[in-house]
Amino acid sequence: MTFQSKIQPKQEVVLTGDRTTGKLHLGHYVGSLKHRVQLQQQYETYIMLADVQALTTHFHNPGMLADSVRQVALDYLSVGIDPEQATIFVQSMIPEIAELTCIYSMFVTVSSLRHNPTVKHEAQERGYEDLYYGFLGYPVSQAADITAFKASLVPAGEDQIPHIEQARRIVRRFNELYAPVLVEPQILVGERLEGLDGGSKMSKSLGNAICLDASSEEVRSQIRRATTDPARVHKTDPGHPDICTIYGYHSIFRKEGSEEIREQCQKGSISCAACKAMVTEAIEEVLEPIRERRELYKHRTKDIDDILMAGTTKARSVARQTMGEVREAMGIHYFK
Amino acid sequence: MTFQSKIQPKQEVVLTGDRTTGKLHLGHYVGSLKHRVQLQQQYETYIMLADVQALTTHFHNPGMLADSVRQVALDYLSVGIDPEQATIFVQSMIPEIAELTCIYSMFVTVSSLRHNPTVKHEAQERGYEDLYYGFLGYPVSQAADITAFKASLVPAGEDQIPHIEQARRIVRRFNELYAPVLVEPQILVGERLEGLDGGSKMSKSLGNAICLDASSEEVRSQIRRATTDPARVHKTDPGHPDICTIYGYHSIFRKEGSEEIREQCQKGSISCAACKAMVTEAIEEVLEPIRERRELYKHRTKDIDDILMAGTTKARSVARQTMGEVREAMGIHYFK
Repeated sequence: MTFQSKIQPKQEVVLTGDRTTGKLHLGHYVGSLKHRVQLQQQYETYIMLADVQALTTHFHNPGMLADSVRQVALDYLSVGIDPEQATIFVQSMIPEIAELTCIYSMFVTVSSLRHNPTVKHEAQERGYEDLYYGFLGYPVSQAADITAFKASLVPAGEDQIPHIEQARRIVRRFNELYAPVLVEPQILVGERLEGLDGGSKMSKSLGNAICLDASSEEVRSQIRRATTDPARVHKTDPGHPDICTIYGYHSIFRKEGSEEIREQCQKGSISCAACKAMVTEAIEEVLEPIRERRELYKHRTKDIDDILMAGTTKARSVARQTMGEVREAMGIHYFK
Repeated sequence: MTFQSKIQPKQEVVLTGDRTTGKLHLGHYVGSLKHRVQLQQQYETYIMLADVQALTTHFHNPGMLADSVRQVALDYLSVGIDPEQATIFVQSMIPEIAELTCIYSMFVTVSSLRHNPTVKHEAQERGYEDLYYGFLGYPVSQAADITAFKASLVPAGEDQIPHIEQARRIVRRFNELYAPVLVEPQILVGERLEGLDGGSKMSKSLGNAICLDASSEEVRSQIRRATTDPARVHKTDPGHPDICTIYGYHSIFRKEGSEEIREQCQKGSISCAACKAMVTEAIEEVLEPIRERRELYKHRTKDIDDILMAGTTKARSVARQTMGEVREAMGIHYFK
């Protein structure tokens, strides 16, 4: 990133967001949220509350969407997303995203979606014998989100790499078929955080997550119960940090001290309890300012709604502009 | 249909339309257009120029869409669709259709689409080894078209039966999941017209169609070259009307006289040339008033654009109303 003076307009565009299926957690923070807080200062940043995409897995429970939209928005403000800097908007209120999804659908093959490793993996994880059409088309819909804002940078987890690849292919195909209107996005890959039970990514639906609104007490108790090296029963037993969830947290939240912990663990000179206490403290350092900001916003529901409405209005006008260019490129701008 | 006085509002809603991939032909007329002309008097009728769905097979050639949209509109006016009675609109200008498509996508399984016989058949016919995602989702998009206007009746060819069945399932699922907002459509099946080469349905892409704008000379020459019973070489050979394309036309365009023709053919007492001349005359009776109306509208391109713009504006306001109810039912009407 280069220096940008305050008067210079932000040239590059960032698009990112979350499905509104519940509260966000530390995995989201490490994987994407903390990047966004930095990026918003230098990039034109759009952050999407993905309530339509939430339906891919939660269509039978739409009642939770309205709550989740505001909950996730509160999480955003709490981690330091600044509505003066970044545009937070609601996906279902931008019809142009649906229009672009339908258009891109025409030149993406079913087999390229079927072979998308993340779609395959998620379908497996959820035990779907039969895919829903919208679930299969998730990458198409994501390409629509990104391109509606001509985003060049998408901060996301590594599981999103195949989706961004698909978005890039869609952009190239569109630009080649019609006119060079769309922008090819790059992914900015965030760190992956293991869940408290070890073995899989932190995820609310797997029940292995530390939520961003967890109290100090909850964090302490969750970390205390987290899986460590099962072979290490006594403090003096040599540990295997590479298979220990807690060591993984050290390497993310206590980067500088983590080599020392590795040695102490391998030598059996530090107890798991002491090791966990250090990680707890580091996580608390992340969460404490988030809690403070949450206190400021928590009861300002009207203000949050105003932020979302203003963001959605701004996002809509940008998406409308892109859609106009898309229509023009495709020759379906009939009545001028 | 029951009698409706002029002041009574039209209760039932008809939705129908055509993909804008070129001029319409007699197959369209027999299968659906002639019904529409009758229905428009008694039903609230919406007729869609399906330019987004045209992309399912023509995405690589969008330049033709703008022409086709106006060409098909001219065909509509020529067959007697009355813009005072029916609302003609452009699909791509109704974003709510795309929004509904994306929502319904969430609860339609990929396998139900894969097993849709019409999708299968058309994929085969076009020699698609690999389906495009939007092609596979055609029935979902069609359900969005129909339900956006709460249409209860869809005049269409028999190949559309599986699509309307799918639309009915989508409506039932939506109403059960959220709230009874949508209307289950019924199909009004039109007659199927064989192509001039016999053996398959009349279709412009198969080159076996009589276009609605064909001149008398063209019609005469096309019918002259049409496939008949290949076993019948001389006039006195007994013919097999059931395998003869021209006899099929008699049974559609000369219903009352067709039994007599059947007997004469079987007895070898009428020549193929005479038989074709009679069919030509009957088809000319259909086409002549269409030609006359076409003359009236042909050069009034500005008027046609005005008709489409007015129709689209009206259609949009109805679709927007439905979409509002859909949002309300799903609990995604956030800021009131």
